[in-house]
Amino acid sequence: MKLGTVEIDGLTAVAIWVAESKIALMPRHYSNVDTVLRSQGAWSIDANAAIESSERYSTEEIAWLPPIVSPGKILCVALNNSANPDRIISGPETPAMFVKPSSSLVGHRHPIIVKDSYGRVHPEPELAVVIGRAGADIPVESAMDHIFGYTIVNDITSPTMRAEDTFHYRAIHPASDNPAQVSYVESWVSYPARYKGADTFGPMGPWVVTSDEIPDPHALTVRCSHNGRVVTDDSTANLRFSVSQVIAFVSSYLTLQVGDVIAMGTALRPSATGGAVQNVDLTQLGGTIEVSIERIGTLSNPVEHR
Amino acid sequence: MKLGTVEIDGLTAVAIWVAESKIALMPRHYSNVDTVLRSQGAWSIDANAAIESSERYSTEEIAWLPPIVSPGKILCVALNNSANPDRIISGPETPAMFVKPSSSLVGHRHPIIVKDSYGRVHPEPELAVVIGRAGADIPVESAMDHIFGYTIVNDITSPTMRAEDTFHYRAIHPASDNPAQVSYVESWVSYPARYKGADTFGPMGPWVVTSDEIPDPHALTVRCSHNGRVVTDDSTANLRFSVSQVIAFVSSYLTLQVGDVIAMGTALRPSATGGAVQNVDLTQLGGTIEVSIERIGTLSNPVEHR
Repeated sequence: MKLGTVEIDGLTAVAIWVAESKIALMPRHYSNVDTVLRSQGAWSIDANAAIESSERYSTEEIAWLPPIVSPGKILCVALNNSANPDRIISGPETPAMFVKPSSSLVGHRHPIIVKDSYGRVHPEPELAVVIGRAGADIPVESAMDHIFGYTIVNDITSPTMRAEDTFHYRAIHPASDNPAQVSYVESWVSYPARYKGADTFGPMGPWVVTSDEIPDPHALTVRCSHNGRVVTDDSTANLRFSVSQVIAFVSSYLTLQVGDVIAMGTALRPSATGGAVQNVDLTQLGGTIEVSIERIGTLSNPVEHR
Repeated sequence: MKLGTVEIDGLTAVAIWVAESKIALMPRHYSNVDTVLRSQGAWSIDANAAIESSERYSTEEIAWLPPIVSPGKILCVALNNSANPDRIISGPETPAMFVKPSSSLVGHRHPIIVKDSYGRVHPEPELAVVIGRAGADIPVESAMDHIFGYTIVNDITSPTMRAEDTFHYRAIHPASDNPAQVSYVESWVSYPARYKGADTFGPMGPWVVTSDEIPDPHALTVRCSHNGRVVTDDSTANLRFSVSQVIAFVSSYLTLQVGDVIAMGTALRPSATGGAVQNVDLTQLGGTIEVSIERIGTLSNPVEHR
């Protein structure tokens, strides 16, 4: 099943994919996919009934919201692509993550807003996991049982703001010979709230595809196009840490809650035509950016310069 | 007015401070301070009526939740203390921030859970702002109008996990002479989801104090004690970027929503007795950590080793 959150006649509702460009609507007490996730499974009966009986709408008539409107948290795995290991001088031995604020989310077709003050801004096409069952300390063997489905996140990034928010400083460590004293250790640190979390930096959707339709999340083609030119042509096979490894690792530190989203890291293998996502400076180029993941769909967003 | 979220008889409710150790309860349709914030000001009439007529409870009888149970986002300002500028080799010229996940929040008296796998873990006592009026691109002159009140956040931090999640890599930049090609620029990056966002790493409360009771948020004593020994004795006068500067800056990138929390950065001037928060390794020492901010209250949490 493919589910999305849409706005229709001024109300939000859950769309069910029925056929190319055709959707049915779930009963109106499901106001977004978040409510589906919290229905304890009752939704699937309602969804099948809606496919049988509900009026069809064209996907052209509707406005899309992010499918999960208010995730408890959006975790993003960094540096998780094995396609170019030559980039890493000292890299993650376990999944490294940051939190993207839910205020950055926008739906399919919503503009990505860029400003001159943002500097360079580029897309990052990512497979994302939607958690359907909460858990902490989840064993890797049962990690997949916690997944409701998969969606697409375009993890918009400003390397200019990243550089501005990266600092070289002396961290305070207790002195090894006298823990009552401190010593200073030169360190680098960077803070992602702006460069990953600015408004509209989180296009998500259009669909959440239930996990039964994706038996292997590590065998999916990922493509990113700018104004129709393919800039990334990659596969989730290149993810360094797998979905189950990430769920097991993260849940030993942060409890996963129903509706949490984990973006698995950027697909960035350049296309055969020589593109690369880091070359697509949306601030300079504008245009439309599309992310397509096999079996899930295509997330398309125009860029608007303010 | 001082408001907190408490659990009493298995239900959550809003506590109003009445006198030392004595609270009244708001009518039960306010289930947490989040609902107060969304009441469009109607809450203050209900609060005054409750103080007049409601039964008193002792604060010893109740369990505390984080006052804001589900903030849309928790932004934390980093490196915002001018007390030790010698630490900064290249530091922020504008407020640098990260997002702390709401799943890390716990209330007053709730244990802070540490594990051996976390390595060193230390407290960070911080003044936090609770947003009462949403806004984007907020001018510095009207920034204070967006504040509902102030609370305390203990921004628990693991420097061990920070080191593990700090990486040296080659960032991909478009070549300056040919934007279709990429060049590699050596960079450092760190990811805070684990070291700032692990479960129980966000003690908050007990009170949100409405802004009318705190005419100047930059004249408040901040103290942090471990097992009764003062380790930080500081003042919000030492915050480098002010509350209004932070609100204005952040809102030009991330829209602030009602219920968002901004932790203003660590107070870390060591106490006269030679303490320092970075010396208080909660994983090794256990004990109880207390953060007191003038006019707001005391946030106390025992440490539990698992």
